[in-house]
Amino acid sequence: MRLFDGGRAPNPRRVRIFLAEKAMTVPLVPVDMGALGHRGAEVASRNPLRRLPVLELDDGTILTESVAICRYFDEVQPEPALFGRGALGKALVEMWQRRIELNLFAAVASAFRHIHPAMKEWEVPQVPEWGEANKPKAIEFLEFLDAELAAREFAAGDDFSIADITGLVALDFMKPARITVPENLTNVLRWHRALAARPSAAA
Amino acid sequence: MRLFDGGRAPNPRRVRIFLAEKAMTVPLVPVDMGALGHRGAEVASRNPLRRLPVLELDDGTILTESVAICRYFDEVQPEPALFGRGALGKALVEMWQRRIELNLFAAVASAFRHIHPAMKEWEVPQVPEWGEANKPKAIEFLEFLDAELAAREFAAGDDFSIADITGLVALDFMKPARITVPENLTNVLRWHRALAARPSAAA
Repeated sequence: MRLFDGGRAPNPRRVRIFLAEKAMTVPLVPVDMGALGHRGAEVASRNPLRRLPVLELDDGTILTESVAICRYFDEVQPEPALFGRGALGKALVEMWQRRIELNLFAAVASAFRHIHPAMKEWEVPQVPEWGEANKPKAIEFLEFLDAELAAREFAAGDDFSIADITGLVALDFMKPARITVPENLTNVLRWHRALAARPSAAA
Repeated sequence: MRLFDGGRAPNPRRVRIFLAEKAMTVPLVPVDMGALGHRGAEVASRNPLRRLPVLELDDGTILTESVAICRYFDEVQPEPALFGRGALGKALVEMWQRRIELNLFAAVASAFRHIHPAMKEWEVPQVPEWGEANKPKAIEFLEFLDAELAAREFAAGDDFSIADITGLVALDFMKPARITVPENLTNVLRWHRALAARPSAAA
């Protein structure tokens, strides 16, 4: 098994954080996304969508999509459970993973990809007006999340889950996207500090 | 338990198709999204993001996000398995559900919401340039999917799954978004016909 990794990009990082939380080790194949290495034959032959990360199993089976790769690892090694426990627990983790991914992570990524000059070759066409429209969407969701986090430690409840990993990656991605967490969202800021202080955040 | 439903909108329909495939019945509370009913107090008090569907359990617990609601039903009643079987099977369903949702469904939805005059109050601000940019993205993904579907019956393998439900809803959503499946994508067209012919498609 080997994981084609993409360095600082947020989706490859989600999988590395997940593996660190599971205390699992998988051989990494580094791909230089800055040099558009994910568009080369090594990645494209395995994932025609030319995105990272890509997990190659020993029999050659290919898995893509960071959350799908994480789910595979969660099924192979169930503890600690990072996709929730029980029907309701699993559904709540899925709900928060999706809410954070679709309303925060996607908004931050759109702001970055449609505005940052370095993304001109990545996002064709860049639509700066769409990038700008996403900045208030990200903030609006953070305001909702802040109220939720007043009542509990993690995104989906009392236990750390993949929803928190998506949250950490999205919050860290706000810096290059030039969006700032408003100072009054103290619960989001506390949550971000706690996630960033976990050893897995260095992955 | 009751499901706040949104009629013809694609996300509420995903859950109704899922329930039909499971042969499960849940009391529905109809919400008129055409009259912006999802922004009224009945929905907003349960889901501050003001989106449908919303599942309310008997103890008042709220679940939102169509895929999270489907996962809850899948955990409560595992057969037929619509999220895959075994570690690899579950990961492959998750991969295809995400590939189809993020590359096809999201692109079709963006084209519809950012271009259609009726969506002016829903998508603020509408960015028509972004809507147009999504049309070729949807087609490009369908070309990739067509090659994949040459080798198998369903999106994630030999068994029907939630990835097919997302596919059916996305393909049907192409009509109001004014995107047409190219005639040469015969595998996609065959797949669409087969999904639309299942009794669950009427849900």
